[in-house]
Amino acid sequence: MSLKDSYESYRKNGIFFVITGPSGVGKTTIMDHTLESDERLAYSISHTTRDRRPEEVDGEDYYFVDREEFEGFRKEDRFLEWAEIYGDYYGTSREEIDRIKREGRDPFLDIDVQGAAQLRADPSVNPVFVFLAPPSLEELERRIDNRGAESPEVKEKRMGVAREELSRIPEFDYLIVNEKLKRAVEELEAVIKAERLKV
Amino acid sequence: MSLKDSYESYRKNGIFFVITGPSGVGKTTIMDHTLESDERLAYSISHTTRDRRPEEVDGEDYYFVDREEFEGFRKEDRFLEWAEIYGDYYGTSREEIDRIKREGRDPFLDIDVQGAAQLRADPSVNPVFVFLAPPSLEELERRIDNRGAESPEVKEKRMGVAREELSRIPEFDYLIVNEKLKRAVEELEAVIKAERLKV
Repeated sequence: MSLKDSYESYRKNGIFFVITGPSGVGKTTIMDHTLESDERLAYSISHTTRDRRPEEVDGEDYYFVDREEFEGFRKEDRFLEWAEIYGDYYGTSREEIDRIKREGRDPFLDIDVQGAAQLRADPSVNPVFVFLAPPSLEELERRIDNRGAESPEVKEKRMGVAREELSRIPEFDYLIVNEKLKRAVEELEAVIKAERLKV
Repeated sequence: MSLKDSYESYRKNGIFFVITGPSGVGKTTIMDHTLESDERLAYSISHTTRDRRPEEVDGEDYYFVDREEFEGFRKEDRFLEWAEIYGDYYGTSREEIDRIKREGRDPFLDIDVQGAAQLRADPSVNPVFVFLAPPSLEELERRIDNRGAESPEVKEKRMGVAREELSRIPEFDYLIVNEKLKRAVEELEAVIKAERLKV
């Protein structure tokens, strides 16, 4: 075996990166930037029962399914994790993660704190958990406001959930604070690069 | 406590980075580049009994001491690790690492495999272990040749030590292959950045 082959044998393959953070923190923007510059990453598409937004594509943003189908998957234990959020179901299928790993790529998943806790409890996967945090609660509120289209009740609910989520940062492997987008993207990229250099 | 303060409380301080790799792999060059761009890193200066080379500065490249002084330190357990290499003593004093941490900086140490194993066995420190490897043994030999000033015996000894060292890569946290200097520096910087983002 050449030295290069032995180096390869020390590396991990199919590293599962899990990104969590409060709604409004900028997860999607940061993940999109990172996905664009990194062909080895593959966005893990979740199943959901929530309504498709006009700009969303089935099989690209989510696999949109009805409650009956979702519950069938659950009963067959086909979800690595699932959660009910604001009345809708979201889940990550084992098939989705296996498919990405079979392609020789690294699954990249956007998930909430509940889902992350389920993944942590499952010994069949060993993800790298990254928490994306806002610089302050005031800034998070401002970002949620800027998105618009939220009722005061939904906004208050989101802020409450955010406070609860932030208290669970110690359960994560890495903490990235999204103060400046460019810096947060660079930090996420450094985490991904470093994990791939692990023996 | 503000969110920012709580984020700070999750971070590690004084992360001890230990860089190991065969003689000739390019450790010094890579470490110098990294030190230049990172003010939080501080090169940990070793004690040694070997002769000072003309270009070296006492208290900068090494603390140059005689064998008696070195053995006094050893007896007083003032070394975190020490080793005899090619007939000379080298050691890292506890005071040196403590001094750097007190400055709020991250110790950055260049050490051989024997020394790294001693640090791993010491529960009072918990370093991040990085192995720097050559792309191939042929390339390592070429680099040792290019440095010149080595007798064939010393060169053969170095190559034998290198083979033994390479077999111990699995004991390390990260593996960086120095094929292209720029890339190796970027990888080391990513490891350092990622470790600082750990919770």
